[in-house]
Amino acid sequence: MAKTLRLHPERLFPSDPAARAVAARLYAEIRDLPIISPHGHTDPAWFAENAAWTDPTSLLLAPDHYLYRMLYSQGIPLEKLGVPSRQGPSGADPREAWRLFASHFHLFRGTPSSIWLNHVFGEVFGFTQALSTETADEYYDGITAALATPAFRPRALFDRFRIALLATTEGAVDELPHHRAMRAEGWHGNVVTTYRPDSVVDPEHEEFAGALARFGNMTGEDVESWDGYLLAHRKRRADFIAMGATASDHGHPTAATADLSRPAVEALFAKVVAGKADAAEAELFRAQMLTEMARMSLDDGLVMQIHPGSFRNHNTQLFAAYGRDKGADIPRQTEYVQALRPLLGAHGNDPRLSIILFTLDETVYARELAPLAGHYPCLTLGPAWWFHDSPEGMRRFREQVTETAGFYNTAGFNDDTRAFLSIPARHDVARRVDSAFLARLVTEQRLDEDEAAELAFDLTWTLPRRAYRLNNLPADPRG
Amino acid sequence: MAKTLRLHPERLFPSDPAARAVAARLYAEIRDLPIISPHGHTDPAWFAENAAWTDPTSLLLAPDHYLYRMLYSQGIPLEKLGVPSRQGPSGADPREAWRLFASHFHLFRGTPSSIWLNHVFGEVFGFTQALSTETADEYYDGITAALATPAFRPRALFDRFRIALLATTEGAVDELPHHRAMRAEGWHGNVVTTYRPDSVVDPEHEEFAGALARFGNMTGEDVESWDGYLLAHRKRRADFIAMGATASDHGHPTAATADLSRPAVEALFAKVVAGKADAAEAELFRAQMLTEMARMSLDDGLVMQIHPGSFRNHNTQLFAAYGRDKGADIPRQTEYVQALRPLLGAHGNDPRLSIILFTLDETVYARELAPLAGHYPCLTLGPAWWFHDSPEGMRRFREQVTETAGFYNTAGFNDDTRAFLSIPARHDVARRVDSAFLARLVTEQRLDEDEAAELAFDLTWTLPRRAYRLNNLPADPRG
Amino acid sequence: MAKTLRLHPERLFPSDPAARAVAARLYAEIRDLPIISPHGHTDPAWFAENAAWTDPTSLLLAPDHYLYRMLYSQGIPLEKLGVPSRQGPSGADPREAWRLFASHFHLFRGTPSSIWLNHVFGEVFGFTQALSTETADEYYDGITAALATPAFRPRALFDRFRIALLATTEGAVDELPHHRAMRAEGWHGNVVTTYRPDSVVDPEHEEFAGALARFGNMTGEDVESWDGYLLAHRKRRADFIAMGATASDHGHPTAATADLSRPAVEALFAKVVAGKADAAEAELFRAQMLTEMARMSLDDGLVMQIHPGSFRNHNTQLFAAYGRDKGADIPRQTEYVQALRPLLGAHGNDPRLSIILFTLDETVYARELAPLAGHYPCLTLGPAWWFHDSPEGMRRFREQVTETAGFYNTAGFNDDTRAFLSIPARHDVARRVDSAFLARLVTEQRLDEDEAAELAFDLTWTLPRRAYRLNNLPADPRG
Repeated sequence: MAKTLRLHPERLFPSDPAARAVAARLYAEIRDLPIISPHGHTDPAWFAENAAWTDPTSLLLAPDHYLYRMLYSQGIPLEKLGVPSRQGPSGADPREAWRLFASHFHLFRGTPSSIWLNHVFGEVFGFTQALSTETADEYYDGITAALATPAFRPRALFDRFRIALLATTEGAVDELPHHRAMRAEGWHGNVVTTYRPDSVVDPEHEEFAGALARFGNMTGEDVESWDGYLLAHRKRRADFIAMGATASDHGHPTAATADLSRPAVEALFAKVVAGKADAAEAELFRAQMLTEMARMSLDDGLVMQIHPGSFRNHNTQLFAAYGRDKGADIPRQTEYVQALRPLLGAHGNDPRLSIILFTLDETVYARELAPLAGHYPCLTLGPAWWFHDSPEGMRRFREQVTETAGFYNTAGFNDDTRAFLSIPARHDVARRVDSAFLARLVTEQRLDEDEAAELAFDLTWTLPRRAYRLNNLPADPRG
Repeated sequence: MAKTLRLHPERLFPSDPAARAVAARLYAEIRDLPIISPHGHTDPAWFAENAAWTDPTSLLLAPDHYLYRMLYSQGIPLEKLGVPSRQGPSGADPREAWRLFASHFHLFRGTPSSIWLNHVFGEVFGFTQALSTETADEYYDGITAALATPAFRPRALFDRFRIALLATTEGAVDELPHHRAMRAEGWHGNVVTTYRPDSVVDPEHEEFAGALARFGNMTGEDVESWDGYLLAHRKRRADFIAMGATASDHGHPTAATADLSRPAVEALFAKVVAGKADAAEAELFRAQMLTEMARMSLDDGLVMQIHPGSFRNHNTQLFAAYGRDKGADIPRQTEYVQALRPLLGAHGNDPRLSIILFTLDETVYARELAPLAGHYPCLTLGPAWWFHDSPEGMRRFREQVTETAGFYNTAGFNDDTRAFLSIPARHDVARRVDSAFLARLVTEQRLDEDEAAELAFDLTWTLPRRAYRLNNLPADPRG
Repeated sequence: MAKTLRLHPERLFPSDPAARAVAARLYAEIRDLPIISPHGHTDPAWFAENAAWTDPTSLLLAPDHYLYRMLYSQGIPLEKLGVPSRQGPSGADPREAWRLFASHFHLFRGTPSSIWLNHVFGEVFGFTQALSTETADEYYDGITAALATPAFRPRALFDRFRIALLATTEGAVDELPHHRAMRAEGWHGNVVTTYRPDSVVDPEHEEFAGALARFGNMTGEDVESWDGYLLAHRKRRADFIAMGATASDHGHPTAATADLSRPAVEALFAKVVAGKADAAEAELFRAQMLTEMARMSLDDGLVMQIHPGSFRNHNTQLFAAYGRDKGADIPRQTEYVQALRPLLGAHGNDPRLSIILFTLDETVYARELAPLAGHYPCLTLGPAWWFHDSPEGMRRFREQVTETAGFYNTAGFNDDTRAFLSIPARHDVARRVDSAFLARLVTEQRLDEDEAAELAFDLTWTLPRRAYRLNNLPADPRG
């Protein structure tokens, strides 16, 4: 029998009536604020081309490793879920894949994926019955039909979602065609890019050699000389800034930074270019490049985002068959105190520098990150990230960070997603969880409710706007 | 003055009335389910011989390092508590030892030991006054008298406790006489063994040389050759399977695994057999053996349990005087992501393999274990273990694991105990704490109550039954 | 517009009415107990000289790195806040510095600093409006005026605060003039010293060479010989004991201990004295000295406090300009199990030894410290320390420590502060948070309320009195 899809208006608020009432009041004031999405991975082609999506499997399931990894963990082969392999597209029938997903939806109980999906199902598509084996076809047909209508084109949803700004992420050798097209066309949507140079910064990246050659061609610089290589970065950063970028993003295995002498860095770079850097030298080069990027930021103002700590492609067999980003990236312990010291020693007190730190290792929240951000003027803490972008994860972040770093050394929420339809759901969860956390402080008399209301607004709007230097957004969108 | 022993029917439920009511409803449905105890350390002789226990000190205190370590930490010598040393039995009068314990019972306030003991005192023995200096003798006499009656023999309690399955743990060179006797006799109790080969797998085990020789004698294999050694394991695993085993258990210092080439492993094994392996080689051999055990599991279907991270016998003086397992095993930081990769790279996607992971290092719950179990089909997470088998420990486990791994990549509860009388108490705590956790999700509208009720049953029955491949148990015992 | 300063009588209690009522009852019984402050950093000159403080900036802001680091993290230069540099006093006008502080007071929302400061403002000075830009001058003038009155002299406040014992901390080469003066004068205030020998124990301490020479001069010992050096420590420890000391304090980068052979330690000491110890040798020497200090404690009874894990002076530029203790000390991961084993192996079971362990790395609470303290008779756990001396930090401490170590292997609260006026506020927070934690155990029926009331008293009085061997305090001050 079909079950009602419940989206309780006070979901994610505390059970205690006093705290729940405060949370509801705080949330009511921020619920409808426009969305700032300053870090994410949606496809800019969607907004440039505004083509219709076709079906729920190819839109929601096959590209979302949050979802199919969970089914894979229970023994369901990826090819049955429509996930393409290195051999090409999955041969699975999209409707059959969707039915398989629907019949295993109970696996997501207690996970943020179920909260996000139910929000998408209920709020975006208007379903009133829960997804299940029984309703799988109704969902498949209903979503497919909706996607064929103008109201579900990317730009229409962008407007419906009230997105004040959306940042995508592009690599250093991306020509940014979609961003150029949107700007040339003059579409009103505020979609910007982010400079992510990993493929030309990480000697261990599988595309490094090819990307470096292309980097030289695109910029006209001799990228095999250290000065030319740095200049190429500066030129590309300028290209990205012209496409709205206010930030760079750095996804390194660790948070290591370095500040080598000129001769040392030139010798290291020569080895890197020659393809002869060993693992320690590759690590050192990535470390040095964070400091170089910081130096460029002093001049061009890009905010640096450092995202360390993921062991990529842990499952060797799956990587061989399916390639990257298939749900097998596993966090590792990550050290920041020693790692960041070279960069901070060089530029940590410079008011022009702004660095947003992320982590997948929650043990550093209270021990390392909050004390660092509670001291260095250049440091801000990004929100609970990836596996921790969840109600419990966000709560732990606030509980462990706030008492040392305060609220004002944090950057507000960002969704980090490639699942465009889930963006309102994710921001809604963050707003609810922040309201719940603030409500607890109010009912425990650690904060007055007027202060909490001001904080709720600041966490939603003021802090991401400031952290990402989004000066084209108003200081207060409430008019 | 004596204090009432209170076993509040809603103990361990949240204080908030709404959440408490939900917890009570969820718990009511699972309270009386039979107990699955798939991992523990009770003595099979109890059930084979069904002899009466004699007194509370020798039954409850002297063998339980959870209890006497706490008194030792406050300066009470072990010999006064009836704990035997390497010199032989303690000379303490059992009644005096019990009085000493009773007069220090306040030390256990806020610990799971006090919850378990009060459950044993109230539910198993029917006491209505709390244990204290004043009631020590009443307890001593009452328990002694009860133990002399048929209703307190091991098999009678086994039935009274409604145990659907109880697994004990035996070493690789154990002849399994008690298990053989129970089966020969045809006793109805479902007691099975578990294959724990540490003494013939760990070159640093103090009994290694002797155990290895015995291992050869028992199996008729040349255990000094690599092939013979592996074959001996396969034979003994078959012996254990004949005595009901569905799982093996591996208590290593770390989670390291290895997958060496045949020449490398033969060279390593030769050093191990010759007693010439150094610490790094011993570690490598243990690591290799986990992968070998996984390969055997592909054939014989035993579920692997990996229990790493305890620094055994930390107190050198105490170890010299009293020997192993005296409450001085201390957890250490434990890494899983790099450690498990060799084994997972070889067999991690094989549907025949099932591995249950445990940890004493809670920092890996959200960072490492949940992402691993939320991806690899062979991995399941064991419950909060040992020091973390406690209300707060279980809550942290659920809070940190669920959002990434879901509930369905966990194995339900197991008690891991040698204290037979505490088994119902321990399972009751787990059922209460799971009900409380689920109730919070319900009152925060993250889960519907019907889903929570289904989960409560699954956590108690479906998941341990499936994780340990207990196919002889019914899918639903509620008839 | 000015905001009311609210000090809600039930602040920091749980929102749930049942738990809140229990917390309020528990707290009412301990609220007015005298303060035991057995570890702190107030200036003994204040009590010896009893001079008036002058203004809020020099009393509350400029010396408190908890406060100005937060403003610095938001880009406010230290010189504007009255913080002296290596060049001398800040040129900032104290009133302007105070206004700047007041206008940024929102940065402390959700931090313990705001709780402590509001307590000082409301309870000590009697303000009824909150600190803000608007009230900055009113505060400045009001505090300045109050400080000029006899009631705000150090000794008057000492009495008003009902301090039963206050320990300060002095270095090994301190002449203890203020303690001598207080004793010579016969002032009734119970102010004692603590032996902190870091400057003559840590070869990497910037004052090591000079301090060692002075150490020899003060004691008349040949401190360049190993025996003379140890004897000098014994003499100085006796001097400190004469000034009331019952404890020593050791602030090392790690928890490493060592127990070297006599020849090895003499060779090491020779290198240390010659200034030729490298980093590893300096670490080994500090490690050895912890064991030497333990040996001295066996004879003279001083309780050892071990405070490891802070990376001092992380900000190199700030250190160059401003010197030590400017809010740039950052915690690092700290290991205890392997680190403490040499000391514990030598003396861990000796009833004469008492060691109080602290940590800045919360990951060791449940994993390492609680199991160690729940076994070794010599070990007691100090309270949540420094960045963790906060409501959430204290709650995590109790939640993660209690189930394994119990309450009775902990040392009660200590404030560790140099901010004298905040001492009642800090102890009040600890009493409230402990009451709230105990209340949760009561409402979850894990503890009876009479047990909780006994524990609340023990945590406030019995445990610090016992842990610090304060035998001159009564067992119960309630008369």
